[in-house]
Amino acid sequence: MNQITENILTRRSIRSFIEDQISEEDLNTILTAGSYAPSGMGMQSWKFTAIQNANVLKKVNEAIRLTLKSMTVVAETHPYFVSLIEKAKDESANFLYHAPTLIIVSNLKDNGNSMADSALAIGNMMLAAHSLGIGSCWLNQLPRLTHMPFIREMLTDIDVPANHIVCGTVVMGYAAKEPKQAAPRKNVIHIIR
Amino acid sequence: MNQITENILTRRSIRSFIEDQISEEDLNTILTAGSYAPSGMGMQSWKFTAIQNANVLKKVNEAIRLTLKSMTVVAETHPYFVSLIEKAKDESANFLYHAPTLIIVSNLKDNGNSMADSALAIGNMMLAAHSLGIGSCWLNQLPRLTHMPFIREMLTDIDVPANHIVCGTVVMGYAAKEPKQAAPRKNVIHIIR
Repeated sequence: MNQITENILTRRSIRSFIEDQISEEDLNTILTAGSYAPSGMGMQSWKFTAIQNANVLKKVNEAIRLTLKSMTVVAETHPYFVSLIEKAKDESANFLYHAPTLIIVSNLKDNGNSMADSALAIGNMMLAAHSLGIGSCWLNQLPRLTHMPFIREMLTDIDVPANHIVCGTVVMGYAAKEPKQAAPRKNVIHIIR
Repeated sequence: MNQITENILTRRSIRSFIEDQISEEDLNTILTAGSYAPSGMGMQSWKFTAIQNANVLKKVNEAIRLTLKSMTVVAETHPYFVSLIEKAKDESANFLYHAPTLIIVSNLKDNGNSMADSALAIGNMMLAAHSLGIGSCWLNQLPRLTHMPFIREMLTDIDVPANHIVCGTVVMGYAAKEPKQAAPRKNVIHIIR
């Protein structure tokens, strides 16, 4: 196993962070790694909005909380949202795992490759972060709520282009505790020789 | 720059391959790297079908060619398909860059995270491959044609589950020539400190 595959195999999603901020140099390295991901037709139509400002992070969190709070659980509500809607009733609820850095990856609404391209960029970022000792976790609240009014207003405030949707977001910081080893599912690989 | 970020920054899409096959060991390393990608809710609902058999690769290529050949260019045809449909008239057309290995990543049709999860897995595979000196390129024909009859029949033949769609495919092999350096787009990064 070389360093690259070892880095891939030891990366875990981190959901608990200490307060220390990621340095400017490391953040630049991470974002640059994202920008070197392949993209369909080489479009690179993504935008990476990295937020390290505590007040702006609070605003993002509050936009998520108020949007969730405005939703009612009905029979059709996706299970993913049921617990989030409940959690949103608590005014101090934090949907970003109290991470010091959030990166929002947005991309063209009308580009069929936007999700794949953005995921590849975020994958690069998470791997670069892990190689620097920085933990990360993909979060799906903003992508799922990208068309909701509170969210769109907040996205406009932080200059996410109006013709973009949020494809993925990732929180980053230093892990508060060592994660467990991964145990990927068996039987997902089929080789035809 | 450490080895991980260097590997990320030097990976390029490869579209021309020599005939040499990827070893069993390297293929396993690459597929394992894919299986260590994060997935929404930890579902890991993907399947990786790796094809190294020349006859099966021919069948996949012919399913793509016949599907494209059956399509007519109309005003609404996506530009991506116009040149492919033209190319498909040539019986010897190869849509897989004559690569010795093709990996098809399929995932549940009704999982909202299928595309993101599959892209993260393919990203890991491309980076692991590059670290082993193996070139790769994401191909979008099968994902775009996943619901077409010739394609579905071929997917069934190679045991892609009926409740799966093809989210992404990647060809792999040894590059026939050195790729150029990448030059990512400027102005995609916005940092709020």
